[in-house]
Amino acid sequence: MDYPTPSWVYEAVIYQIFPDRFAIGRGKLVYDKEKLYTKRGGTISEWGTTPIRTGDSRQSKTFYGGDLWGIAEKIDYIHELGANCLYLTPIFTSPSNHKYDAIDYFSVDPQLGGNRALISLIKALKSHSMRLILDGVFNHMSNLSPLFKKAQRGSEFREFFNFYETHHRAWWGVQSLPEVNLEEVSVRKFISLVLTHYLKLGIDGWRLDCGQDLGQVNNAFVASVVKNFSIEKYVISELWTYPSGWNMVDGTMNYQFRELVISCLKGETTRAGSLLEKMYRDTPKIFGCWNMLDSHDTERLATTFPDRDLRKLAIVLQFTYPGVPVIFYGTEVGLDGGSDPECRATMIWDESKWDSELRNFYKQLIRIRKDEIALKVGEFVLINEHPIAFMRRTQNIQDTIIVVVNPGNEVNLVVPVPDHRILDRSKFVDLFTDEVFKVTSGTIKIPIQAKSFRIMKLKNETPGMYNQYKLVV
Amino acid sequence: MDYPTPSWVYEAVIYQIFPDRFAIGRGKLVYDKEKLYTKRGGTISEWGTTPIRTGDSRQSKTFYGGDLWGIAEKIDYIHELGANCLYLTPIFTSPSNHKYDAIDYFSVDPQLGGNRALISLIKALKSHSMRLILDGVFNHMSNLSPLFKKAQRGSEFREFFNFYETHHRAWWGVQSLPEVNLEEVSVRKFISLVLTHYLKLGIDGWRLDCGQDLGQVNNAFVASVVKNFSIEKYVISELWTYPSGWNMVDGTMNYQFRELVISCLKGETTRAGSLLEKMYRDTPKIFGCWNMLDSHDTERLATTFPDRDLRKLAIVLQFTYPGVPVIFYGTEVGLDGGSDPECRATMIWDESKWDSELRNFYKQLIRIRKDEIALKVGEFVLINEHPIAFMRRTQNIQDTIIVVVNPGNEVNLVVPVPDHRILDRSKFVDLFTDEVFKVTSGTIKIPIQAKSFRIMKLKNETPGMYNQYKLVV
Repeated sequence: MDYPTPSWVYEAVIYQIFPDRFAIGRGKLVYDKEKLYTKRGGTISEWGTTPIRTGDSRQSKTFYGGDLWGIAEKIDYIHELGANCLYLTPIFTSPSNHKYDAIDYFSVDPQLGGNRALISLIKALKSHSMRLILDGVFNHMSNLSPLFKKAQRGSEFREFFNFYETHHRAWWGVQSLPEVNLEEVSVRKFISLVLTHYLKLGIDGWRLDCGQDLGQVNNAFVASVVKNFSIEKYVISELWTYPSGWNMVDGTMNYQFRELVISCLKGETTRAGSLLEKMYRDTPKIFGCWNMLDSHDTERLATTFPDRDLRKLAIVLQFTYPGVPVIFYGTEVGLDGGSDPECRATMIWDESKWDSELRNFYKQLIRIRKDEIALKVGEFVLINEHPIAFMRRTQNIQDTIIVVVNPGNEVNLVVPVPDHRILDRSKFVDLFTDEVFKVTSGTIKIPIQAKSFRIMKLKNETPGMYNQYKLVV
Repeated sequence: MDYPTPSWVYEAVIYQIFPDRFAIGRGKLVYDKEKLYTKRGGTISEWGTTPIRTGDSRQSKTFYGGDLWGIAEKIDYIHELGANCLYLTPIFTSPSNHKYDAIDYFSVDPQLGGNRALISLIKALKSHSMRLILDGVFNHMSNLSPLFKKAQRGSEFREFFNFYETHHRAWWGVQSLPEVNLEEVSVRKFISLVLTHYLKLGIDGWRLDCGQDLGQVNNAFVASVVKNFSIEKYVISELWTYPSGWNMVDGTMNYQFRELVISCLKGETTRAGSLLEKMYRDTPKIFGCWNMLDSHDTERLATTFPDRDLRKLAIVLQFTYPGVPVIFYGTEVGLDGGSDPECRATMIWDESKWDSELRNFYKQLIRIRKDEIALKVGEFVLINEHPIAFMRRTQNIQDTIIVVVNPGNEVNLVVPVPDHRILDRSKFVDLFTDEVFKVTSGTIKIPIQAKSFRIMKLKNETPGMYNQYKLVV
């Protein structure tokens, strides 16, 4: 039997941060922190300059100075946007800016403010009723970690890794990233200690790096440790596969969702609707999966869709498809950038450079998602293939939402509302424009402009004291 | 699509209190509060005296002085027992001691300490990370309520009730309990205001009185209001029917569970195992249902089973069957009593009169339920009909629990462990006695004494560095 999805996850809107690039705290500039980077072989770059693609390891040694103090100082910004959960890419001590190569799992990197900054961030988040997800990289670690060095010398921790004559097993063969021997009891014990150490500090969940390398058995192992700590804690796995079948965790980073949405909006497929429906039906954990449009591992949404109208359609799908919307820092104000390292540029804090209309659009969608329970827990029912139109509905039919996303030309859509509980003469109201559309004999006609969308809700009217929904739920 | 069960419910152990009978706060005796009762036609009784069955309305007019101040003062007692959630029978202003006949839904009865006492209780509970469920009586109210009186006069609220020539529709025809006209929009609006008023004060859920009278449509209506407030809030409905099919709420008070357990332990059936399994399979919301052995509406467990060995078997089933264990105040120290009003006797605070061994037994079971995730969220798999033996298991097979309950004579039970993931040579450990039993070719032999039980857990051993479960989850 699968672990139940923590109920708060249905209401979560996640904001993803790459900590070196979000904000520097305590009034500092990167120059004030220079030593923290240079003494460990790094170089520094000024906030706002574009990360340079060197094609080698220097790319991961350039630091902009962001830290957890900075994040804590910017909580009001995130809270005002409406997100209620942070996901931070790795923060444990590591030689790189991305920190996917840990040296010490039990210390937050001093470059990011150290353990004190984490504790302070958790406290600040709790005071805003916000949650925190950390990134757990358990498939491999840095070859600079004392643990690996001891193993290499044969003194201790030998069983943590796989050594052969001239080399060791490493992620994709990269020797600086030795793979951990996940079958060993002592290794699992170690991972277990890391997981529970941070859960005890008050974090709300773990994102598992390299989910496919961990395999189903270790995804399940981690989930078991976390859920034994508390079934209200969350486990999400980085997977670039079809999301179904990974039921041992609460969900996957749903990169396929991103692919389908992009293909649809670029006109490469007219079948995205039914593919999204199939994914919904195939994936029991869909409500815990992440609806992402970009991340630190992809190009940014503004680069994929410079046309803001198309971009908005993608965002509408992100907030209305079952699953947890995840906003990659900066995307809400129009930050652009190609694949790594460009997508890891620094956050824009000069408001005059923001796309404020876009930011308001996010706020509106987040507000709607918070108000509308059908968008949190409702079923997904496809009602038109192209343009994509679907219902989200719960047991209370009056909470029904209809979403239409039209990447093509203006059209007058005639669609069924396939639920016997939606009564004749009901009306749907467009939550953005207040336009009203009437249901006639179980169908509804919706005019929709080119490259536009509608999010509509059933309106229950009471003429006099008469209410036709009195015995309907 | 059903609302997901709030995840905290899987970890809940509920303590049910009838507020007039649990504790008087602020150092008072009932005599100090006498006026509060007599001025409204009540009489008072001294703590510890048996409630008298008068067979008429006087029975509900006798007060012992318990209040919410008293409950707040006794939180440490409940917390020490291990319960993490309170369910209070009604607390709104009403002429009776049971308060199932509200006069004013927006005021806590001054007899129970008034609104201030409730706010103070909620605060005290939160500081212990404990939760609170209130009792919502929406099918009917007292004919003394100003609302009904106005309706009767025809001045206002006429649509709240159904008036006929000489009488009004009332619960089971009892004219002092006029039934509310639940189909009216204004009535639903009123109920909705009551529900959200207390949710805003910080309560965690509602128990719905007279679930079957409300009908599925109003159970669903209430659930919708509560879940729209927050999907982490809980709705449980009083139902004496088979629990399946009430999917619009998070669960029912599972009185059938009580019946089956009692019949089994009294030797009236040897089929309780398969009936419990059928109930589990038929009821998607079983994890939100209440496993009760007694309540304010039944005789007390100690009266049903004066034989403490049998009683313990009932309690083992209460804590190991899927669902939320609900302890009726006092039952944990051996308080006995027949049906209403005897079962509503005052709590025993003289520790010398406690059955302390029984209380320790509850503590042990609560501790086990908190430690063992399989008892919270695990599947139920029957492995023997009589004596009843079953597995509870999650996706992590190492968390598996086997429970055996033997109401009959001593027996050597040979049972299969029907899961391919339970490997040969595994051992199960009795969590009470530390005895160890070995799995051989998928079967296990368990000696079990007359009128006794076992709760056993899979033990994963690592001889040397070898662990046979390394690739099993």
